[in-house]
Amino acid sequence: MGTEIERKFLVEGSDWRQGKPVRLTQCYLNRDEHRTVRIRIAGEEAFLTVKSVTQGATRAEFEYPIPVADAEQMLKFSDGPLIEKDRHVVVLDGCRWEVDEFHGDNAGLIMAEIELTSEDQPFSRPPWLGREVTHDRRFYNSNLAAHPYKEWR
Amino acid sequence: MGTEIERKFLVEGSDWRQGKPVRLTQCYLNRDEHRTVRIRIAGEEAFLTVKSVTQGATRAEFEYPIPVADAEQMLKFSDGPLIEKDRHVVVLDGCRWEVDEFHGDNAGLIMAEIELTSEDQPFSRPPWLGREVTHDRRFYNSNLAAHPYKEWR
Repeated sequence: MGTEIERKFLVEGSDWRQGKPVRLTQCYLNRDEHRTVRIRIAGEEAFLTVKSVTQGATRAEFEYPIPVADAEQMLKFSDGPLIEKDRHVVVLDGCRWEVDEFHGDNAGLIMAEIELTSEDQPFSRPPWLGREVTHDRRFYNSNLAAHPYKEWR
Repeated sequence: MGTEIERKFLVEGSDWRQGKPVRLTQCYLNRDEHRTVRIRIAGEEAFLTVKSVTQGATRAEFEYPIPVADAEQMLKFSDGPLIEKDRHVVVLDGCRWEVDEFHGDNAGLIMAEIELTSEDQPFSRPPWLGREVTHDRRFYNSNLAAHPYKEWR
């Protein structure tokens, strides 16, 4: 088991763009607030990931590599729209940011995540960092699958 | 992906008992009728299993071995009672029966399953075989986790 502590922010402008992103396609096999089961295809790899209840910004996470062919089949089980996004990795002052640019029903949404070793770990804020949304459930990927960004407006 | 075709029956008497069973402890990470995500500890092994919609007696099934320590953690995520049962394997006339003797909140329930290669494959019926419950949702293990046998009476 890993423990995941991450903070999430909206993103402004486009100064974060660099390098080639990885396309992520994912769905959730459940809609339970207390635990999520995610199928993700990331380029040539695929993963099944279980995450437990969020407590603050901390989650228990179990991730297993699975065959891409299995993941493709399981994406069809999803009854919500798939989440499709390009993940850009931006390293800045020794911090690794993942900037997710959403497509499909979530187009227009760009979010940056930073993984921390403790919830109060300090980090430098890049100039393109917008409002923090770590605790805003609307921005959970599991929620975006059920209630995509295009429906918000 | 595997495809699973199985028929399930209640069991009468005790002439099916032979050998040493394997203790199975399992929970479900979701309660969705269209797909289930199961965590199972089977003796010294553990598995994460995704099954799709039932169509007749056929299901798509994806099973992955996982560390027992992970499974033990994930069993705690479950918000229903765990399913605990002893699985007895009985081979009869070339057919392999799995006879599950439930414990805990499902004590008193004993079910036999046979896996087939087609839905209409003939097989010999052992004398201890009772009523078929393949299509009775109450007997789905995922349902027994949410609505255990002891609540039925």
